Amino acid sequence: MVKYPNPSGPDLARRIGERIRELRLERGITSQETLADAALLHRTFIGRVERGETNVTVATLERICAALGVSLSEFFRSFDR
Amino acid sequence: MVKYPNPSGPDLARRIGERIRELRLERGITSQETLADAALLHRTFIGRVERGETNVTVATLERICAALGVSLSEFFRSFDR
Repeated sequence: MVKYPNPSGPDLARRIGERIRELRLERGITSQETLADAALLHRTFIGRVERGETNVTVATLERICAALGVSLSEFFRSFDR
Repeated sequence: MVKYPNPSGPDLARRIGERIRELRLERGITSQETLADAALLHRTFIGRVERGETNVTVATLERICAALGVSLSEFFRSFDR
């Protein structure tokens, strides 16, 4: 019944960063600083997240998603492929 | 273009905890310890997460989701209502 996980660690952080960058550019937000301001985060932090260098919390990702105008479910939809 | 977020902080943690508990019980996993073992986490940590007392990372939530047999997108789908 219980499946054992396949922890994806650094790979997950990289995919999250790529997804944020993809959505940011789709929305025409060319600078990380603009996104950072909208999410009330520091621009260097957004840079680290986009590069997959940090293990973001769901609460922080929710703020980024809100700034990008997507739900958490929509954000992760592309991960199901 | 950029929407300002409505940070939901403690409310988000509470919803995540309730969703984990809901999925765990749906799968007939009656003990938090069984889920904790499957996700390679400590049972007291699962307890804290289910009670909404901790701000979980996406990486940790992914391990819990894998143990519950749902994707992150499926996990958050009920949040869209």
